Amino acid sequence: MEQITTDICIIGAGPVGLFAVFEAGLLKMRCHLIDVLPQFGGQLSEIYPHKPIYDIPGYPEVTAQQLVDRLMEQIAPFHPTFSLGERVETLNRNDDGSYIIQTNDHTTVHCQVVVIAGGLGCFEPRKPEIDRLLDFEGKGVAYMVKNPEIFRDRRVVLAGGGDSALDWAIFLANVAERVTLIHRGDTFRGVPDSAEKVFELAKEGKIDLILKSNVVALTGEGHLQEITLLDRNNEVSHIAADHFIPLFGLSPKLGPIADWGLNIDRSAIVVDTVDYSTNVERIYAIGDINTYPGKLKLILCGFHEAALMAQSAFKYVYPEQKLSFKYTTVYGVSAF
Amino acid sequence: MEQITTDICIIGAGPVGLFAVFEAGLLKMRCHLIDVLPQFGGQLSEIYPHKPIYDIPGYPEVTAQQLVDRLMEQIAPFHPTFSLGERVETLNRNDDGSYIIQTNDHTTVHCQVVVIAGGLGCFEPRKPEIDRLLDFEGKGVAYMVKNPEIFRDRRVVLAGGGDSALDWAIFLANVAERVTLIHRGDTFRGVPDSAEKVFELAKEGKIDLILKSNVVALTGEGHLQEITLLDRNNEVSHIAADHFIPLFGLSPKLGPIADWGLNIDRSAIVVDTVDYSTNVERIYAIGDINTYPGKLKLILCGFHEAALMAQSAFKYVYPEQKLSFKYTTVYGVSAF
Ligand SMILES: Cc1cc2nc3c(=O)[nH]c(=O)nc-3n(C[C@H](O)[C@H](O)[C@H](O)COP(=O)(O)OP(=O)(O)OC[C@H]3O[C@@H](n4cnc5c(N)ncnc54)[C@H](O)[C@@H]3O)c2cc1C
Ligand SMILES: Cc1cc2nc3c(=O)[nH]c(=O)nc-3n(C[C@H](O)[C@H](O)[C@H](O)COP(=O)(O)OP(=O)(O)OC[C@H]3O[C@@H](n4cnc5c(N)ncnc54)[C@H](O)[C@@H]3O)c2cc1C
Repeated sequence: MEQITTDICIIGAGPVGLFAVFEAGLLKMRCHLIDVLPQFGGQLSEIYPHKPIYDIPGYPEVTAQQLVDRLMEQIAPFHPTFSLGERVETLNRNDDGSYIIQTNDHTTVHCQVVVIAGGLGCFEPRKPEIDRLLDFEGKGVAYMVKNPEIFRDRRVVLAGGGDSALDWAIFLANVAERVTLIHRGDTFRGVPDSAEKVFELAKEGKIDLILKSNVVALTGEGHLQEITLLDRNNEVSHIAADHFIPLFGLSPKLGPIADWGLNIDRSAIVVDTVDYSTNVERIYAIGDINTYPGKLKLILCGFHEAALMAQSAFKYVYPEQKLSFKYTTVYGVSAF
Repeated sequence: MEQITTDICIIGAGPVGLFAVFEAGLLKMRCHLIDVLPQFGGQLSEIYPHKPIYDIPGYPEVTAQQLVDRLMEQIAPFHPTFSLGERVETLNRNDDGSYIIQTNDHTTVHCQVVVIAGGLGCFEPRKPEIDRLLDFEGKGVAYMVKNPEIFRDRRVVLAGGGDSALDWAIFLANVAERVTLIHRGDTFRGVPDSAEKVFELAKEGKIDLILKSNVVALTGEGHLQEITLLDRNNEVSHIAADHFIPLFGLSPKLGPIADWGLNIDRSAIVVDTVDYSTNVERIYAIGDINTYPGKLKLILCGFHEAALMAQSAFKYVYPEQKLSFKYTTVYGVSAF
């Protein structure tokens, strides 16, 4: 329930949203970023942090997470602020043209300009079909780990076979009272190193690893208490648990942004390439979420879009000032 | 007098021309680059190699030359070829739509697509007013050092007060029989380190340093033989010399490109932002040399333009093939 005032509110903290902070900062515009994911980096951090990218100009090779880290370093002088783990829900226009944005956590952001850098959309967890799963949301069931401390000294059950499930099982082994990882298969899709580590921790008794099994039901009074499993021979078993975290990936949805009166074409926001503005004044869309003739969903294209957006947004933040174009080499990067 | 056949001929080996090789290479198109300067890197290598740039995405700071070096590394897998120190003069269209490009050195390049990445234009040397200077062009007078070996064991006179004059005086001190540096002032505009080095070499007798003087005339029979100087007291002196290299900076000119029937607006080529194509089929313009609504003369914008250009150029190089969009992370960078 925070109340924030800023120049530009950026929806999405993927690479393009992050770089927009830099381009805005050069023009002395402050930014606040909101992302439903608990970390910044968008697809890069969420889907392929360890994979190399080869087409970032000037980087013959860089892993996705390295690129995100370098971008964070680059924008640090401009002190952007973040609301992570929150989904943007509503947008309201004030009489003076400025906007109020609200998230599902009741954070409100008052801003002059809105930049939608929402990528493929708001990452929503894939929810497995488990009896009473929805009943326990917020009462023991979570689809992402926002703050690992919540699980300190509790009994946590994770389900899934990808990197998230492996990484969190390893991490929480040192935090939770007990970590159980349940996977329907007997091999993991995640990074081999992580899988190996999980098998090791299981051997050392630090993780309970249950393979070839599925969670089928949850029970509890008010809060989650027990998890019901079914193995391949249809044998039923039960595990006492305070928390259940199914990690079956995230799928992106355009979500509430679809209802803001923006021109949408096949789940993407139509923009004008002069400045990547949408059909609604003071709202821009950059990165994977926009579309225009020739559009390529590439990171390097989003960077260009961010630069042109910032030049255009300036007039709303500083209506009285004339913008002059300057090279960073000549004028440097002066913070606020 | 080389004859080259390639898919794409890129005019200009600045950062944008270089990165275009990468984007073309991903789509299996080969590139040949032509630049009038003796080195690649365009403005970055010629004007501000040692200065930091702050707005290359993912680089909180990078010197201009470092960026050029990283770009060269990035495009190496695609084995681009270069004609450096040559100016593109003419363009002729063949009946099948392909082009023949010719340089002032009579290099011809046969290509399917022409990409003009000419920046601010062809860098032309500023020529000081010196009696008979033009007579000795190519006969002792040069405005750039293309191949330092030409000066081995010869008597070389340099004139100028900037980085080029300092750098070449230092370099040629070890190559030429005798190096004389003439400067109208008594302090240098170049990097302080280089100026100091020149004063040191002068003290050691490895460079003849003549300050507060101007070259006023050249003499010789057929080839340059003698240089006439005037100092601030109007005293005349003479120096025997085989070579004279006035280094008074370069000024860019659009040059012959202006006569190719392209739409030009204030020295820039008008392009369509769908693919950065010009009004002439198979000719694209990217980087500082183009213009369109919203255009910013930034390196990062040229990178985006190169990516969209390559997608569009593909149809001319592979008319029978369907282009499919692929991520480098997933498909890598496979060379030819
Ligand atoms: C496997 C893979 C490999 C790839 N390889 C390459 C490559 O080699 N080169 C390349 O250039 N690109 C590559 N890409 C594409 C690249 O990742 C995207 O172009 C890039 O992530 C787009 O950045 P973005 O900032 O626009 O959006 P994203 O990275 O998608 O970030 C958008 C963020 O906005 C958030 N968001 C959306 N709506 C809301 C809302 N309502 N409230 C709160 N938050 C919201 C999302 O949660 C997300 O975190 C690859 C993609 C994948 C999946
Ligand atoms: C001091 C300074 C600081 C700068 N700082 C920044 C910064 O911080 N950030 C930023 O993004 N940009 C900056 N810039 C601008 C940046 O350098 C340009 O945007 C960039 O160089 C453009 O690249 P390019 O490849 O389009 O053209 P160029 O780098 O200009 O290269 C074009 C090349 O084409 C060649 N050429 C042209 N015509 C012909 C012909 N007919 N035949 C043969 N060769 C030809 C030229 O010789 C030249 O080498 C700065 C520029 C300067 C001068």
